[in-house]
Amino acid sequence: MAVGLRAFGAKGPGWLRRGPWAPFAASFCSQGRVPEPGPRLTSVRQRDGIRSIVLSNPKKRNALSLAMLKSLQSDILHEAESQDLKVIIISAEGPVFSSGHDLKELTDERDPQYHAEVFQTCSEIMMLIQNHPVPVIAMVNGLATAAGCQLVASCDIAVASDKSSFATPGVNIGLFCSTPGVALGRAVPRKVALEMLFTGEPISAQEALLHGLLSRVVPEEQLEEETMRIARKIASLSRPVVSLGKAAFYKQLHQDLRKAYHLASQTMVDNVALRDGQEGIKAFIQKRKPVWSH
Amino acid sequence: MAVGLRAFGAKGPGWLRRGPWAPFAASFCSQGRVPEPGPRLTSVRQRDGIRSIVLSNPKKRNALSLAMLKSLQSDILHEAESQDLKVIIISAEGPVFSSGHDLKELTDERDPQYHAEVFQTCSEIMMLIQNHPVPVIAMVNGLATAAGCQLVASCDIAVASDKSSFATPGVNIGLFCSTPGVALGRAVPRKVALEMLFTGEPISAQEALLHGLLSRVVPEEQLEEETMRIARKIASLSRPVVSLGKAAFYKQLHQDLRKAYHLASQTMVDNVALRDGQEGIKAFIQKRKPVWSH
Amino acid sequence: MAVGLRAFGAKGPGWLRRGPWAPFAASFCSQGRVPEPGPRLTSVRQRDGIRSIVLSNPKKRNALSLAMLKSLQSDILHEAESQDLKVIIISAEGPVFSSGHDLKELTDERDPQYHAEVFQTCSEIMMLIQNHPVPVIAMVNGLATAAGCQLVASCDIAVASDKSSFATPGVNIGLFCSTPGVALGRAVPRKVALEMLFTGEPISAQEALLHGLLSRVVPEEQLEEETMRIARKIASLSRPVVSLGKAAFYKQLHQDLRKAYHLASQTMVDNVALRDGQEGIKAFIQKRKPVWSH
Repeated sequence: MAVGLRAFGAKGPGWLRRGPWAPFAASFCSQGRVPEPGPRLTSVRQRDGIRSIVLSNPKKRNALSLAMLKSLQSDILHEAESQDLKVIIISAEGPVFSSGHDLKELTDERDPQYHAEVFQTCSEIMMLIQNHPVPVIAMVNGLATAAGCQLVASCDIAVASDKSSFATPGVNIGLFCSTPGVALGRAVPRKVALEMLFTGEPISAQEALLHGLLSRVVPEEQLEEETMRIARKIASLSRPVVSLGKAAFYKQLHQDLRKAYHLASQTMVDNVALRDGQEGIKAFIQKRKPVWSH
Repeated sequence: MAVGLRAFGAKGPGWLRRGPWAPFAASFCSQGRVPEPGPRLTSVRQRDGIRSIVLSNPKKRNALSLAMLKSLQSDILHEAESQDLKVIIISAEGPVFSSGHDLKELTDERDPQYHAEVFQTCSEIMMLIQNHPVPVIAMVNGLATAAGCQLVASCDIAVASDKSSFATPGVNIGLFCSTPGVALGRAVPRKVALEMLFTGEPISAQEALLHGLLSRVVPEEQLEEETMRIARKIASLSRPVVSLGKAAFYKQLHQDLRKAYHLASQTMVDNVALRDGQEGIKAFIQKRKPVWSH
Repeated sequence: MAVGLRAFGAKGPGWLRRGPWAPFAASFCSQGRVPEPGPRLTSVRQRDGIRSIVLSNPKKRNALSLAMLKSLQSDILHEAESQDLKVIIISAEGPVFSSGHDLKELTDERDPQYHAEVFQTCSEIMMLIQNHPVPVIAMVNGLATAAGCQLVASCDIAVASDKSSFATPGVNIGLFCSTPGVALGRAVPRKVALEMLFTGEPISAQEALLHGLLSRVVPEEQLEEETMRIARKIASLSRPVVSLGKAAFYKQLHQDLRKAYHLASQTMVDNVALRDGQEGIKAFIQKRKPVWSH
C-alpha cells in the first residue's frame, strides 16, 4: 500500500478537487510537492471496509511533524473513492495520542516558508477529514494536545477512553494554539475553548464529552470494542448514501436556514432517487434486509 | 375550527409573507395547493391563549405524511395573528411522538415532484415555527425519529419525559436524514449530530438535555404539568413584546456581532417605546402588576 | 487613575479604532461624549498585571446605569495598550453581580435618543471585551440578570460560585432581553437561551456550566482563589502572544473553514516569528523557563 500512497498523496483524488461540496480543498493543497522518503510514521490496515490508521511514533509522542502529517494525509487520501472503503478510524500507539507539531521544525533555523508549509499541511488534513466521502472516527486513549487535540476535534465522531485528556497548551511556550482553535471553537462552547486556549490546562474526557468535543467516553478496556461497533455499523450501510449525507451536512451547517433547507430538501430528493435509496425504502416496507449495490 | 384552518392553510397570513424577519417563507411555500380533504390527523384545542396541537395518528406512529404535515401546518398558521393566541404546544398521542416521513410516499411509485413536495412542506413547517409570532413548545413523551426528531429540534422550547428518546435512523434504510440534520445540527454539538446521523442510534432524554436538543426533562407524570407551567407563564406576558423579541433573537443569531448588536439595540429602543414596554417598566417601578394591552 | 480614565474613555485607544480585527468598534462608539462627573460606581485595582474591576453599587444591585456603564468602559479601556496589563477580572460587591439596566432611565420621561445611548453604550462594552487585547474574566458570586447576565456571557472566561444564578427576566416587565440575547445566544444552546428569554426564569450555576455560559463553577469560598489562579497563569504568559491569539480566535470563529484556516495558519506563522514565539520554543527545547520580552 505504501507505494500507492506516496504516488497518490501528491495530487489527491478527483472528488477532493471537484466535489460539489469541497471545491476549495484543491486551492489549499501544497503544490504537488512529493514527500521525502523516510520511515513511515503511521501504520495502516484495512478490513471489511474499515481502514485503521495508527499514529506510530510513540517515542516522539506521535508529534505531527511534517513527515507524520504527510503520512497521515496519504493514508486518508489513499483510494478514497474505492467502494471498499466505508469508514476510517484514526488512533495512536502509546500513552500520548498526539502532542501536536514538532517544535524542532518551528525554530528560526527553518524559514517562514517552511513554517507555513507545516501549518498549511496540517490545515489541509483537517479540511480533508470533513471533505472525505466516508466518516472519520478518532479513537483516543491518552493525552491529545495542540494539533493533536485539533485532530480529535476535526474528526466526524470521537470516542475516547475515560483516562484521556485534552489540552491546547501552546500559549505556555509562546505559540498560541490558533489553528487548533479553529477546530476547537467549532466543537465546544466559546468559553470552554477560550479557557483552554488562554490557560493551556487540560480537560478530562468527561468534560470533553460534556462540552461536545467527544461523542462518547468509555472505560479503556471497552474503547476498541465500542469504536469498532460504531465503525462496523457504518460499514454495513450504503456508502453513497452516507457520502451524500455527510457532504450535505457540512455544507448546510453554516448556511442561513432557508438555503440550508433548500439544499437538504434537494439532497433528500436525490437520495430517494438513488438505487440504494429505493432499495432501503422497499426493504423496509417489505420487512426484509436491504441489499446495497453502493 | 377545521374549516377555517383548511381555507387558511393555502396562503398563510401576511406576517409570514411580508414580516420583516421572515421575508423568505413565502418563496418556499408550496404554490397555493389546497390540501385534499380527508380525516384530520391532528387535533387542536385552544384555551387561555394556549393552543395545543396533538399529532393524532398513533396507529401510524404519527408519521409525517403529506396529509399530516398539511394538518400541522394549518393548525400552526390558523389565526396566528390573533391577540388571543399566546403560545403553541405540539404533542402527540401514543408511545411514539412521531416516526418521521411516511415511507410509502417516498417509493418510486410517486414521481420526484411529489417527493420534493413532501420535503418542502416539511421544511416550510420547520421554518414556520421559527417565524411564527408566538413561542412554540414541543412536549415529547416517547420516541421521536427522523423528521419527528427534526420537529422537536425546530421548536423554540422542548420539554420531554425521561422515557423519551431521539434518533435520526434514516441511514439504516438508505435515506440519510439530511433535512433533520439541518435542525439537529443547529441544536446539538456537531459530533453528537454526526454520530446520530451516521449510526442511526437513539440518544436518551438525558443525553438530549445534556447536548441542547431539549431545554428540560421531567418524569413522565410531571410532563404535562411542567409544560403547562411554562406555557401559562408565556401566556401571561405581553404578546407583542414576546413576538418582537422572538423575531429579533433568530434574526441576530447568525449575524456578525456588530450587526447583531445594532439590530438588538434598535429592537430594545422599539420595545421601550411599545405601550406594553412602558406599562411594564412603570408597573415595576411602582411595584404593581402590569396590565398588558397587547 | 480616575482622572486618566475619564479623559481616556472619550475616544478609546488606537487599537480599538484601527485594530485589524476590530475595525468596527469605532463606528459604534458614542460620539466623543464625555461622561458627566459624579461618584464612581466601580472600583479598580491593578497588581502584577491583573486588573480587578469591581461593580461597587450594591445598594442599587449594581444596576448598569449609564453612569455605571461609562465607569466600566473607562476602567476596561484605561491603558489597555500598556505592557503592564495582562488580564482583567470583572466582579461585583454584594449579593447581586448586576441586575442589568437601570429601569428609571428607560421610562418615557427620557427621549428615545437617551434610550438608544444606553443600549449602544452597553453593546459597545460587550464588543470592547472581545476586542480588548487581554483576556477578560467574569468572577460571579450571586445573581446576574438581564444586561448583568449579558456581561457574564460576553467575557472570555467566566468563573462562578455554586450559589450564583443567571436570568434574562426582561419579558416579565415588558422589555424582552434582546441585547442580552445576542451574548446569551452565542454562549448556550438555542433552546436554553429561548427558554430563559421567554420565561424569565433563572438557571443555576451548574446548569450554566452544563450549557456553556460558564467555564468553571466552584464553592463560594474558593471563588477568588480559583479565579486568581487562572488570572495569575495568564499574567505569567507572553502578552503579545495572548493578544494575537485572542484576536485571531474571535476573527476566525464565524468564517468558513477554509478562510478560518487561512487566517489561523498565517497567525501561527506570525506567532512563530515573534520574539516571544522563538523564545518559548527554544526554552522548551532547551528545557528551561522562557523569559518573555513582551
